[in-house]
Amino acid sequence: MRTLSDDLAAHAGQTVSLSGWLHKKRILGGLNFVVIRDRRGLAQAVISRDEELEKLRNLQVSTVLKLTGQVASDQRAPGGAELRDASVEVLVPVTEVPAIEIDKPINHSPDNLDTLFENRVLNLRNPGEQAIFRLRAQVNRLIRQYLTDNEFVEIQTPKLLAGAAEGGAEVFKTDYFGQEATLAQSPQLYKQIMVGAFERVFEIGPAFRAEPSMTTRHMSESTMLDVELGFIKSHEDVLTVAEDMVYQVLTRLYGDQAALLKSLQAPPLTLTKKFPRYKVAEVHRLYSQAAGQDTTKEKDLLPAEERWICDHAKQADGSEAVFVTDFPIESHKFYQMINPKDPGTVLWADLLFRGVEIASCPQREHRLEQLLKQMRDKGIDPQHPGFKYYLQAFAAGLPPHGGFGFGIDRFVQKIIGLGNVKEATLFPRDVHRLAP
Amino acid sequence: MRTLSDDLAAHAGQTVSLSGWLHKKRILGGLNFVVIRDRRGLAQAVISRDEELEKLRNLQVSTVLKLTGQVASDQRAPGGAELRDASVEVLVPVTEVPAIEIDKPINHSPDNLDTLFENRVLNLRNPGEQAIFRLRAQVNRLIRQYLTDNEFVEIQTPKLLAGAAEGGAEVFKTDYFGQEATLAQSPQLYKQIMVGAFERVFEIGPAFRAEPSMTTRHMSESTMLDVELGFIKSHEDVLTVAEDMVYQVLTRLYGDQAALLKSLQAPPLTLTKKFPRYKVAEVHRLYSQAAGQDTTKEKDLLPAEERWICDHAKQADGSEAVFVTDFPIESHKFYQMINPKDPGTVLWADLLFRGVEIASCPQREHRLEQLLKQMRDKGIDPQHPGFKYYLQAFAAGLPPHGGFGFGIDRFVQKIIGLGNVKEATLFPRDVHRLAP
Repeated sequence: MRTLSDDLAAHAGQTVSLSGWLHKKRILGGLNFVVIRDRRGLAQAVISRDEELEKLRNLQVSTVLKLTGQVASDQRAPGGAELRDASVEVLVPVTEVPAIEIDKPINHSPDNLDTLFENRVLNLRNPGEQAIFRLRAQVNRLIRQYLTDNEFVEIQTPKLLAGAAEGGAEVFKTDYFGQEATLAQSPQLYKQIMVGAFERVFEIGPAFRAEPSMTTRHMSESTMLDVELGFIKSHEDVLTVAEDMVYQVLTRLYGDQAALLKSLQAPPLTLTKKFPRYKVAEVHRLYSQAAGQDTTKEKDLLPAEERWICDHAKQADGSEAVFVTDFPIESHKFYQMINPKDPGTVLWADLLFRGVEIASCPQREHRLEQLLKQMRDKGIDPQHPGFKYYLQAFAAGLPPHGGFGFGIDRFVQKIIGLGNVKEATLFPRDVHRLAP
Repeated sequence: MRTLSDDLAAHAGQTVSLSGWLHKKRILGGLNFVVIRDRRGLAQAVISRDEELEKLRNLQVSTVLKLTGQVASDQRAPGGAELRDASVEVLVPVTEVPAIEIDKPINHSPDNLDTLFENRVLNLRNPGEQAIFRLRAQVNRLIRQYLTDNEFVEIQTPKLLAGAAEGGAEVFKTDYFGQEATLAQSPQLYKQIMVGAFERVFEIGPAFRAEPSMTTRHMSESTMLDVELGFIKSHEDVLTVAEDMVYQVLTRLYGDQAALLKSLQAPPLTLTKKFPRYKVAEVHRLYSQAAGQDTTKEKDLLPAEERWICDHAKQADGSEAVFVTDFPIESHKFYQMINPKDPGTVLWADLLFRGVEIASCPQREHRLEQLLKQMRDKGIDPQHPGFKYYLQAFAAGLPPHGGFGFGIDRFVQKIIGLGNVKEATLFPRDVHRLAP
């Protein structure tokens, strides 16, 4: 029977076995400690007999071990108990010195990131590094729970598409049995189609973007949450779902996973149930005043403005999440609805969190004739085969709808307070990195 | 305020509004009915006034409507209530006659499948067709719940890989900023790497296979569940997880979703808590006797044998799920462990359900030296850059481990009793179909 590290204290006085990886070895002559790691955490064992110690000679951190001994309560040990007079069984010896010190905190400084990802297989052996991805799994779980509770049906849509219907140049292409296929940049068209079936759908899956840019916010493969809902009364309904989801997920996470967040030194949460809303033009104006740099001629938000408005909203409104609304018509995408009350703007809001855009939340144009007009106005050919089935869904009646694409990687990054989105990704992909 | 179809009966006597799609229109002169569909189901309304009826003239099924009227209990109506003397607001008119009759059951006969997928956008408007994907969402939910409850951490691994390390010819390739990348056929190497971090991991995601075969079991893009667990005592531990997961998911599904399964005419479930186990050689022998065709010289199972052993196990053992074990060494893949007690066989079992393989469940070779030997024996170069990080994980100590790749599409197909795996897929991909 295997005992797990966090169960040790419950077995005081008994003889038990732990299995895991050698995490630390302290040979001090009379007092020889080893720390072993398993899926629940770390545990400490004292090795007294020379012949047992001898089995560990020349073996490195990460060696797979079984340790058997008597459990003794000891407040100095992790979990309040340790194994005494342990005997050692080496399951898988590790003789090579690891390329990094995996029992020390992993260096996340910006100039060490390439080394961090090069040694990813090793640094994931570190419980501190693992905590990022344990938290990520919890975030995904809470998001799914929220959406399922609110009648959103989880779907899986194809990632291999016929023709670059959406997006343009930044697509990966592949030969598909003699035909050209592209890798999906998002499930945009499919999720709109699916509103016609389920009204409310979501998907969590990979999105591919052949973007050669090297920023702290972009990867060529990312994990996106896509949400879409029909029968909205107004654009505000889309914002309400995004807002309520983020609020519920974050407050539950900060409640249930407080210890994990603390171990990650995540910043405390400052959030209101309704997120403050600022118009793009207002952000330009406020930022220009504050920063002494005129941005009022800009269309989109500058990264510096995204950071600034988040700081501002945290101070002024008590919220680290903020909507920026009323994007100017110059940024308009063909499938978005132009604001009928102000044709110079689009019914499109970005959701920012801790300085970065995590979701883009527009209302869609659901009227076929207007949609076709918007495509033609932008020089997009509605006859392109990539639009055939998409337009079928409108011809067969789609109600007013909207939704959002939500960056899971960025959200996890910002919850923890990591500097780069890649740090929140197990095996990130960028223009220079396709492995591990 | 919008009332949803299944809430109608609770509002008897009140005036309420329904929004949804026109599902049926029956104009009988004096008695004019419409059936409206929303995300909860169908509801019926009686339209008495000519001017209201006039609004529906020339409008087709799937027109988006708002109906307002008084709720009357009526046992003949779906849900036991209907709207009386309804007034009509057309939200989105549909004037084109739909290419298929979406208010009739969708034809799933094998020779109609191409038409079915060509009209996918329309036939998903049919509640009967939707039921397949509502069930699929429940299956995914129950699988995630089971694995999470059993300490498996959900991960997301990259789908863009450097070089065709695994698999060989049947990979899709793409230009990745001047480098060749391939699309992942499975997260095989990554999930083994991740055992070194979390011991227990799973992923649900797309898998890509450039296989030109046209069968009822294959697609070029499918949704796979991948599970891997470390510190197993024997191969049996892998089978136990697969078996327990399938048993718990199916019994909960048949309990919680009985109405949905009934509407899909899913077959009743015949299952034992422990699944029967047959060796490959035994299946060949039994099948040869029963079918009068000698298959004892075969290595792998024939599709006919997979069907036969499932029928046999259902009769003889009372289980529609069955393990076929002890695959012969001729089928051995380099990362699988050869049976130390019988080097002519591999520690590899297939899980079959209702006539088809849904999961392949081997133990892995976790000892680096033996793994390298097996690679070289098969002419695979361990120096290939695609193996660099994989082998790092073994050099840094991986415990005995195993896992399985589990076909979500096939599982859903077989639960419902559909003839082709594509019918359980929203937008299937095969050699001839890349759209919608």
